[in-house]
Amino acid sequence: MKYCSQCGAEIVVRIPDDDNRERHVCSSCDTVHYQNPKIVAGCIPAWEDKVLLCRRAIEPRHGFWTLPAGFMELGETSLEAAVRETLEEANARVDIQDLYMVINLPHVDQVYMMFRSRLLDTEFHPGSESQEVGLFTQEEIPWDTLAFATIRETLRYYYEDVREGAFRTRAGDILRNENGYRFILHSGDRS
Amino acid sequence: MKYCSQCGAEIVVRIPDDDNRERHVCSSCDTVHYQNPKIVAGCIPAWEDKVLLCRRAIEPRHGFWTLPAGFMELGETSLEAAVRETLEEANARVDIQDLYMVINLPHVDQVYMMFRSRLLDTEFHPGSESQEVGLFTQEEIPWDTLAFATIRETLRYYYEDVREGAFRTRAGDILRNENGYRFILHSGDRS
Repeated sequence: MKYCSQCGAEIVVRIPDDDNRERHVCSSCDTVHYQNPKIVAGCIPAWEDKVLLCRRAIEPRHGFWTLPAGFMELGETSLEAAVRETLEEANARVDIQDLYMVINLPHVDQVYMMFRSRLLDTEFHPGSESQEVGLFTQEEIPWDTLAFATIRETLRYYYEDVREGAFRTRAGDILRNENGYRFILHSGDRS
Repeated sequence: MKYCSQCGAEIVVRIPDDDNRERHVCSSCDTVHYQNPKIVAGCIPAWEDKVLLCRRAIEPRHGFWTLPAGFMELGETSLEAAVRETLEEANARVDIQDLYMVINLPHVDQVYMMFRSRLLDTEFHPGSESQEVGLFTQEEIPWDTLAFATIRETLRYYYEDVREGAFRTRAGDILRNENGYRFILHSGDRS
Protein backbone atom coordinates (compact mmCIF):
# COMPACT_ATOMS: atom_id res chain seq x y z
CA MET A 1 0.00 0.00 0.00
CA LYS A 2 1.67 3.20 -1.26
CA TYR A 3 -1.11 5.72 -1.94
CA CYS A 4 -4.23 6.77 -0.03
CA SER A 5 -7.36 5.30 -1.65
CA GLN A 6 -9.36 8.35 -0.44
CA CYS A 7 -7.17 11.28 -1.62
CA GLY A 8 -4.26 9.79 -3.60
CA ALA A 9 -1.51 11.18 -1.32
CA GLU A 10 1.42 9.07 -0.11
CA ILE A 11 0.97 6.53 2.70
CA VAL A 12 3.23 6.41 5.73
CA VAL A 13 3.47 3.55 8.22
CA ARG A 14 3.07 4.84 11.78
CA ILE A 15 1.18 4.28 15.03
CA PRO A 16 -1.93 6.53 15.09
CA ASP A 17 -2.44 8.63 18.27
CA ASP A 18 -5.22 6.47 19.76
CA ASP A 19 -3.72 3.14 18.68
CA ASN A 20 -0.95 0.77 19.77
CA ARG A 21 0.21 -0.75 16.49
CA GLU A 22 1.61 0.42 13.16
CA ARG A 23 -0.97 1.19 10.47
CA HIS A 24 -0.95 2.50 6.91
CA VAL A 25 -1.90 6.16 7.40
CA CYS A 26 -2.36 8.89 4.78
CA SER A 27 0.28 11.63 5.02
CA SER A 28 -2.28 14.20 3.86
CA CYS A 29 -5.83 13.37 5.04
CA ASP A 30 -4.79 11.10 8.00
CA THR A 31 -7.15 8.29 6.95
CA VAL A 32 -6.09 5.05 8.64
CA HIS A 33 -6.24 2.10 6.22
CA TYR A 34 -6.84 -0.94 8.42
CA GLN A 35 -6.06 -4.42 7.16
CA ASN A 36 -7.77 -7.50 8.59
CA PRO A 37 -7.86 -11.28 8.10
CA LYS A 38 -10.18 -12.73 5.47
CA ILE A 39 -12.74 -15.50 5.79
CA VAL A 40 -12.65 -18.50 3.46
CA ALA A 41 -16.02 -20.28 3.51
CA GLY A 42 -16.67 -23.74 2.10
CA CYS A 43 -18.33 -27.08 2.73
CA ILE A 44 -18.09 -30.86 2.72
CA PRO A 45 -20.74 -31.92 0.17
CA ALA A 46 -21.81 -35.42 1.19
CA TRP A 47 -23.59 -37.97 -1.02
CA GLU A 48 -24.20 -41.40 0.56
CA ASP A 49 -20.75 -42.46 1.89
CA LYS A 50 -18.91 -40.13 -0.50
CA VAL A 51 -17.79 -36.48 -0.51
CA LEU A 52 -17.39 -34.16 -3.47
CA LEU A 53 -13.89 -32.89 -4.25
CA CYS A 54 -12.68 -30.44 -6.93
CA ARG A 55 -9.32 -30.62 -8.74
CA ARG A 56 -7.99 -27.08 -8.96
CA ALA A 57 -7.57 -25.43 -12.38
CA ILE A 58 -5.97 -22.32 -10.83
CA GLU A 59 -2.99 -21.38 -8.70
CA PRO A 60 -2.15 -21.83 -5.91
CA ARG A 61 -1.99 -25.66 -5.88
CA HIS A 62 -3.04 -26.10 -9.50
CA GLY A 63 -3.93 -29.77 -10.11
CA PHE A 64 -4.44 -30.60 -6.41
CA TRP A 65 -7.75 -31.65 -4.84
CA THR A 66 -9.86 -29.52 -2.55
CA LEU A 67 -13.28 -29.09 -1.01
CA PRO A 68 -15.27 -26.23 -2.56
CA ALA A 69 -14.30 -23.03 -0.68
CA GLY A 70 -13.40 -19.41 -1.35
CA PHE A 71 -13.30 -15.87 -0.03
CA MET A 72 -16.51 -14.63 1.59
CA GLU A 73 -17.88 -11.55 -0.20
CA LEU A 74 -19.40 -8.34 1.16
CA GLY A 75 -23.14 -8.56 1.89
CA GLU A 76 -23.33 -12.32 2.34
CA THR A 77 -23.31 -14.72 5.30
CA SER A 78 -20.66 -17.42 5.64
CA LEU A 79 -23.35 -20.01 4.89
CA GLU A 80 -24.33 -18.18 1.67
CA ALA A 81 -20.65 -17.94 0.74
CA ALA A 82 -20.22 -21.71 1.14
CA VAL A 83 -23.27 -22.42 -1.05
CA ARG A 84 -22.09 -19.95 -3.72
CA GLU A 85 -18.54 -21.32 -3.84
CA THR A 86 -19.87 -24.87 -4.23
CA LEU A 87 -22.03 -23.74 -7.13
CA GLU A 88 -19.18 -21.77 -8.76
CA GLU A 89 -16.48 -24.43 -8.42
CA ALA A 90 -18.51 -27.59 -8.98
CA ASN A 91 -21.93 -26.47 -10.27
CA ALA A 92 -23.21 -28.45 -7.32
CA ARG A 93 -26.27 -27.68 -5.20
CA VAL A 94 -26.04 -28.31 -1.47
CA ASP A 95 -28.20 -28.09 1.63
CA ILE A 96 -25.95 -26.70 4.37
CA GLN A 97 -26.07 -28.46 7.76
CA ASP A 98 -23.86 -27.47 10.71
CA LEU A 99 -20.82 -25.26 10.89
CA TYR A 100 -18.14 -27.92 11.20
CA MET A 101 -14.59 -26.49 11.32
CA VAL A 102 -13.23 -23.03 12.05
CA ILE A 103 -9.49 -22.90 11.35
CA ASN A 104 -7.19 -19.90 11.87
CA LEU A 105 -4.25 -19.54 9.49
CA PRO A 106 -2.37 -16.58 11.01
CA HIS A 107 0.61 -16.89 8.58
CA VAL A 108 -1.68 -16.03 5.64
CA ASP A 109 -4.27 -13.95 7.57
CA GLN A 110 -7.17 -16.26 6.80
CA VAL A 111 -9.89 -17.98 8.83
CA TYR A 112 -11.55 -21.02 7.24
CA MET A 113 -15.20 -21.75 8.02
CA MET A 114 -16.20 -25.17 6.72
CA PHE A 115 -19.79 -26.48 6.88
CA ARG A 116 -21.20 -29.97 6.61
CA SER A 117 -23.66 -30.22 3.73
CA ARG A 118 -25.82 -32.63 1.77
CA LEU A 119 -25.42 -32.74 -2.00
CA LEU A 120 -28.93 -32.38 -3.49
CA ASP A 121 -28.24 -34.24 -6.74
CA THR A 122 -25.29 -35.60 -8.72
CA GLU A 123 -25.67 -33.28 -11.73
CA PHE A 124 -22.43 -31.48 -10.90
CA HIS A 125 -19.65 -30.56 -13.34
CA PRO A 126 -16.44 -28.49 -13.12
CA GLY A 127 -16.73 -24.70 -12.87
CA SER A 128 -14.07 -22.45 -14.42
CA GLU A 129 -11.75 -22.83 -11.41
CA SER A 130 -11.87 -26.65 -11.45
CA GLN A 131 -10.51 -29.12 -13.98
CA GLU A 132 -12.33 -32.11 -12.53
CA VAL A 133 -15.03 -32.77 -9.91
CA GLY A 134 -15.86 -36.13 -8.38
CA LEU A 135 -17.27 -38.15 -5.50
CA PHE A 136 -14.87 -40.05 -3.25
CA THR A 137 -15.28 -42.59 -0.46
CA GLN A 138 -12.86 -42.26 2.46
CA GLU A 139 -10.56 -44.89 0.87
CA GLU A 140 -10.63 -43.16 -2.52
CA ILE A 141 -9.73 -39.67 -1.24
CA PRO A 142 -6.39 -38.57 -2.77
CA TRP A 143 -4.84 -37.81 0.65
CA ASP A 144 -1.37 -37.20 -0.87
CA THR A 145 -2.55 -34.66 -3.40
CA LEU A 146 -4.92 -32.57 -1.31
CA ALA A 147 -4.37 -28.85 -1.93
CA PHE A 148 -4.35 -27.42 1.59
CA ALA A 149 -3.75 -28.42 5.21
CA THR A 150 -7.20 -27.00 6.07
CA ILE A 151 -8.83 -29.51 3.71
CA ARG A 152 -6.79 -32.42 5.08
CA GLU A 153 -7.68 -31.59 8.70
CA THR A 154 -11.35 -31.03 7.88
CA LEU A 155 -11.65 -34.40 6.09
CA ARG A 156 -9.63 -36.20 8.78
CA TYR A 157 -12.01 -35.03 11.54
CA TYR A 158 -15.02 -35.61 9.32
CA TYR A 159 -14.23 -39.29 8.88
CA GLU A 160 -13.35 -39.61 12.56
CA ASP A 161 -16.86 -38.31 13.34
CA VAL A 162 -18.46 -40.54 10.68
CA ARG A 163 -16.87 -43.51 12.47
CA GLU A 164 -18.06 -42.25 15.88
CA GLY A 165 -21.54 -41.53 14.51
CA ALA A 166 -21.63 -37.97 15.93
CA PHE A 167 -20.46 -34.64 14.53
CA ARG A 168 -19.29 -31.64 16.54
CA THR A 169 -18.12 -28.16 15.64
CA ARG A 170 -14.38 -27.70 16.11
CA ALA A 171 -12.06 -24.71 16.12
CA GLY A 172 -8.28 -24.70 15.85
CA ASP A 173 -5.15 -23.18 14.38
CA ILE A 174 -2.83 -24.27 11.62
CA LEU A 175 0.64 -22.99 12.50
CA ARG A 176 3.46 -23.24 9.97
CA ASN A 177 6.81 -24.61 11.16
CA GLU A 178 10.02 -25.92 9.56
CA ASN A 179 8.49 -29.40 9.05
CA GLY A 180 5.30 -28.20 7.39
CA TYR A 181 2.56 -27.36 9.84
CA ARG A 182 1.08 -28.15 13.21
CA PHE A 183 -2.68 -28.33 13.83
CA ILE A 184 -3.77 -27.18 17.29
CA LEU A 185 -7.35 -27.96 18.21
CA HIS A 186 -8.57 -25.51 20.82
CA SER A 187 -12.28 -26.22 20.87
CA GLY A 188 -14.72 -29.06 20.27
CA ASP A 189 -12.75 -32.23 20.95
CA ARG A 190 -14.07 -35.13 22.95
CA SER A 191 -13.63 -34.56 26.66
CA MET B 1 -12.27 4.08 -2.72
CA LYS B 2 -11.18 6.63 -5.32
CA TYR B 3 -7.47 6.05 -5.96
CA CYS B 4 -5.33 2.95 -6.49
CA SER B 5 -3.28 2.19 -3.36
CA GLN B 6 -0.56 0.65 -5.58
CA CYS B 7 -0.02 3.37 -8.23
CA GLY B 8 -2.23 6.34 -7.22
CA ALA B 9 -4.30 6.35 -10.45
CA GLU B 10 -8.09 6.63 -10.43
CA ILE B 11 -10.30 3.67 -9.52
CA VAL B 12 -13.18 2.51 -11.69
CA VAL B 13 -15.95 0.12 -10.63
CA ARG B 14 -16.27 -2.71 -13.15
CA ILE B 15 -16.47 -6.49 -13.47
CA PRO B 16 -12.96 -7.88 -14.11
CA ASP B 17 -12.60 -10.32 -17.04
CA ASP B 18 -12.39 -13.50 -14.96
CA ASP B 19 -14.97 -12.42 -12.38
CA ASN B 20 -18.76 -12.15 -12.03
CA ARG B 21 -19.20 -9.14 -9.77
CA GLU B 22 -18.27 -5.47 -9.69
CA ARG B 23 -14.92 -4.64 -8.10
CA HIS B 24 -12.83 -1.54 -7.51
CA VAL B 25 -10.23 -1.79 -10.31
CA CYS B 26 -7.33 0.55 -11.11
CA SER B 27 -7.79 2.38 -14.42
CA SER B 28 -4.04 2.33 -14.98
CA CYS B 29 -2.36 -0.78 -13.48
CA ASP B 30 -5.54 -2.98 -13.43
CA THR B 31 -5.03 -4.01 -9.81
CA VAL B 32 -8.30 -5.36 -8.38
CA HIS B 33 -8.94 -4.07 -4.85
CA TYR B 34 -11.07 -6.73 -3.19
CA GLN B 35 -13.14 -5.93 -0.11
CA ASN B 36 -14.20 -8.63 2.34
CA PRO B 37 -16.12 -9.01 5.63
CA LYS B 38 -14.22 -8.51 8.88
CA ILE B 39 -14.06 -10.72 11.94
CA VAL B 40 -14.95 -9.38 15.39
CA ALA B 41 -13.51 -11.67 18.08
CA GLY B 42 -14.46 -11.57 21.73
CA CYS B 43 -15.40 -13.65 24.76
CA ILE B 44 -17.73 -14.23 27.70
CA PRO B 45 -15.41 -13.90 30.72
CA ALA B 46 -17.00 -15.98 33.50
CA TRP B 47 -16.30 -15.72 37.24
CA GLU B 48 -18.42 -17.98 39.48
CA ASP B 49 -22.03 -17.28 38.41
CA LYS B 50 -21.14 -13.89 36.92
CA VAL B 51 -19.89 -12.54 33.59
CA LEU B 52 -17.73 -9.50 32.93
CA LEU B 53 -19.25 -6.65 30.93
CA CYS B 54 -17.74 -3.35 29.75
CA ARG B 55 -19.57 -0.03 29.43
CA ARG B 56 -18.46 1.57 26.19
CA ALA B 57 -16.53 4.87 26.28
CA ILE B 58 -16.51 5.13 22.48
CA GLU B 59 -18.95 5.26 19.59
CA PRO B 60 -20.91 3.42 18.33
CA ARG B 61 -23.21 2.78 21.32
CA HIS B 62 -21.31 5.01 23.77
CA GLY B 63 -22.52 4.29 27.32
CA PHE B 64 -24.02 0.87 26.47
CA TRP B 65 -22.81 -2.45 27.88
CA THR B 66 -20.93 -5.09 25.89
CA LEU B 67 -18.80 -8.18 26.15
CA PRO B 68 -15.13 -7.53 25.34
CA ALA B 69 -14.73 -7.88 21.54
CA GLY B 70 -13.06 -6.16 18.62
CA PHE B 71 -11.63 -6.47 15.13
CA MET B 72 -9.22 -9.35 14.61
CA GLU B 73 -5.78 -8.11 13.51
CA LEU B 74 -3.39 -9.45 10.88
CA GLY B 75 -1.05 -12.17 12.15
CA GLU B 76 -3.22 -13.38 15.03
CA THR B 77 -5.72 -16.18 15.58
CA SER B 78 -9.33 -15.47 16.57
CA LEU B 79 -8.55 -16.89 20.01
CA GLU B 80 -5.58 -14.52 20.41
CA ALA B 81 -7.76 -11.63 19.24
CA ALA B 82 -10.38 -12.44 21.92
CA VAL B 83 -7.71 -12.55 24.66
CA ARG B 84 -6.13 -9.28 23.45
CA GLU B 85 -9.47 -7.42 23.25
CA THR B 86 -10.36 -8.53 26.78
CA LEU B 87 -7.02 -7.22 28.05
CA GLU B 88 -7.38 -3.93 26.14
CA GLU B 89 -10.98 -3.17 27.07
CA ALA B 90 -11.09 -4.47 30.63
CA ASN B 91 -7.47 -5.16 31.65
CA ALA B 92 -8.79 -8.64 32.37
CA ARG B 93 -6.91 -11.90 31.92
CA VAL B 94 -8.87 -14.90 30.64
CA ASP B 95 -8.35 -18.54 29.86
CA ILE B 96 -10.24 -19.22 26.62
CA GLN B 97 -12.43 -22.34 26.52
CA ASP B 98 -14.62 -23.24 23.52
CA LEU B 99 -15.67 -21.26 20.48
CA TYR B 100 -19.25 -20.50 21.47
CA MET B 101 -21.07 -18.31 18.91
CA VAL B 102 -20.37 -17.46 15.26
CA ILE B 103 -22.77 -14.74 14.06
CA ASN B 104 -22.96 -13.29 10.54
CA LEU B 105 -23.98 -9.63 10.22
CA PRO B 106 -24.25 -9.23 6.44
CA HIS B 107 -25.66 -5.66 6.66
CA VAL B 108 -22.37 -4.44 8.21
CA ASP B 109 -20.04 -7.05 6.65
CA GLN B 110 -18.94 -8.53 9.95
CA VAL B 111 -18.71 -12.01 11.43
CA TYR B 112 -18.62 -12.26 15.24
CA MET B 113 -16.67 -15.10 16.85
CA MET B 114 -17.39 -15.27 20.58
CA PHE B 115 -15.58 -17.70 22.91
CA ARG B 116 -16.44 -18.92 26.38
CA SER B 117 -13.67 -18.07 28.84
CA ARG B 118 -12.72 -18.18 32.52
CA LEU B 119 -11.64 -14.96 34.17
CA LEU B 120 -8.30 -15.69 35.91
CA ASP B 121 -8.62 -13.05 38.65
CA THR B 122 -10.79 -10.05 39.54
CA GLU B 123 -8.03 -7.42 39.22
CA PHE B 124 -9.70 -5.90 36.14
CA HIS B 125 -10.27 -2.18 35.46
CA PRO B 126 -11.50 -0.15 32.48
CA GLY B 127 -9.23 0.20 29.44
CA SER B 128 -9.30 3.37 27.32
CA GLU B 129 -12.37 2.21 25.35
CA SER B 130 -14.46 1.45 28.48
CA GLN B 131 -15.87 3.79 31.12
CA GLU B 132 -16.79 1.03 33.53
CA VAL B 133 -16.20 -2.73 33.89
CA GLY B 134 -18.09 -5.06 36.18
CA LEU B 135 -19.30 -8.57 37.03
CA PHE B 136 -22.99 -9.36 36.60
CA THR B 137 -25.21 -12.31 37.51
CA GLN B 138 -27.91 -13.23 34.97
CA GLU B 139 -30.45 -11.13 36.93
CA GLU B 140 -28.13 -8.13 37.13
CA ILE B 141 -27.30 -7.98 33.40
CA PRO B 142 -28.52 -4.66 31.94
CA TRP B 143 -30.52 -6.37 29.18
CA ASP B 144 -32.12 -3.09 28.07
CA THR B 145 -28.84 -1.24 27.63
CA LEU B 146 -26.73 -3.87 25.89
CA ALA B 147 -24.79 -2.34 23.00
CA PHE B 148 -25.36 -4.88 20.22
CA ALA B 149 -27.73 -7.65 19.12
CA THR B 150 -24.73 -10.01 18.90
CA ILE B 151 -24.07 -9.51 22.63
CA ARG B 152 -27.73 -10.00 23.56
CA GLU B 153 -28.00 -13.26 21.56
CA THR B 154 -24.70 -14.57 22.89
CA LEU B 155 -25.71 -13.93 26.52
CA ARG B 156 -29.20 -15.29 25.96
CA TYR B 157 -27.87 -18.63 24.66
CA TYR B 158 -25.17 -18.67 27.30
CA TYR B 159 -27.68 -18.59 30.16
CA GLU B 160 -29.90 -21.10 28.37
CA ASP B 161 -26.89 -23.45 28.29
CA VAL B 162 -25.98 -22.66 31.92
CA ARG B 163 -29.50 -23.77 32.87
CA GLU B 164 -29.21 -26.93 30.74
CA GLY B 165 -25.75 -27.65 32.13
CA ALA B 166 -24.19 -28.15 28.67
CA PHE B 167 -22.62 -25.75 26.19
CA ARG B 168 -22.58 -26.12 22.43
CA THR B 169 -21.10 -24.09 19.59
CA ARG B 170 -23.74 -22.25 17.59
CA ALA B 171 -23.74 -20.38 14.29
CA GLY B 172 -26.37 -18.02 12.96
CA ASP B 173 -27.24 -14.77 11.23
CA ILE B 174 -28.50 -11.45 12.50
CA LEU B 175 -30.63 -9.94 9.74
CA ARG B 176 -31.87 -6.37 10.02
CA ASN B 177 -35.53 -5.67 9.30
CA GLU B 178 -38.00 -2.85 9.88
CA ASN B 179 -38.67 -3.97 13.48
CA GLY B 180 -35.03 -4.20 14.48
CA TYR B 181 -33.48 -7.57 13.71
CA ARG B 182 -34.15 -11.26 13.37
CA PHE B 183 -31.74 -13.91 14.67
CA ILE B 184 -31.63 -17.07 12.56
CA LEU B 185 -29.81 -19.98 14.14
CA HIS B 186 -28.54 -22.32 11.45
CA SER B 187 -26.24 -24.59 13.41
CA GLY B 188 -25.84 -26.03 16.89
CA ASP B 189 -29.31 -26.08 18.36
CA ARG B 190 -30.80 -28.96 20.28
CA SER B 191 -32.19 -31.59 17.96
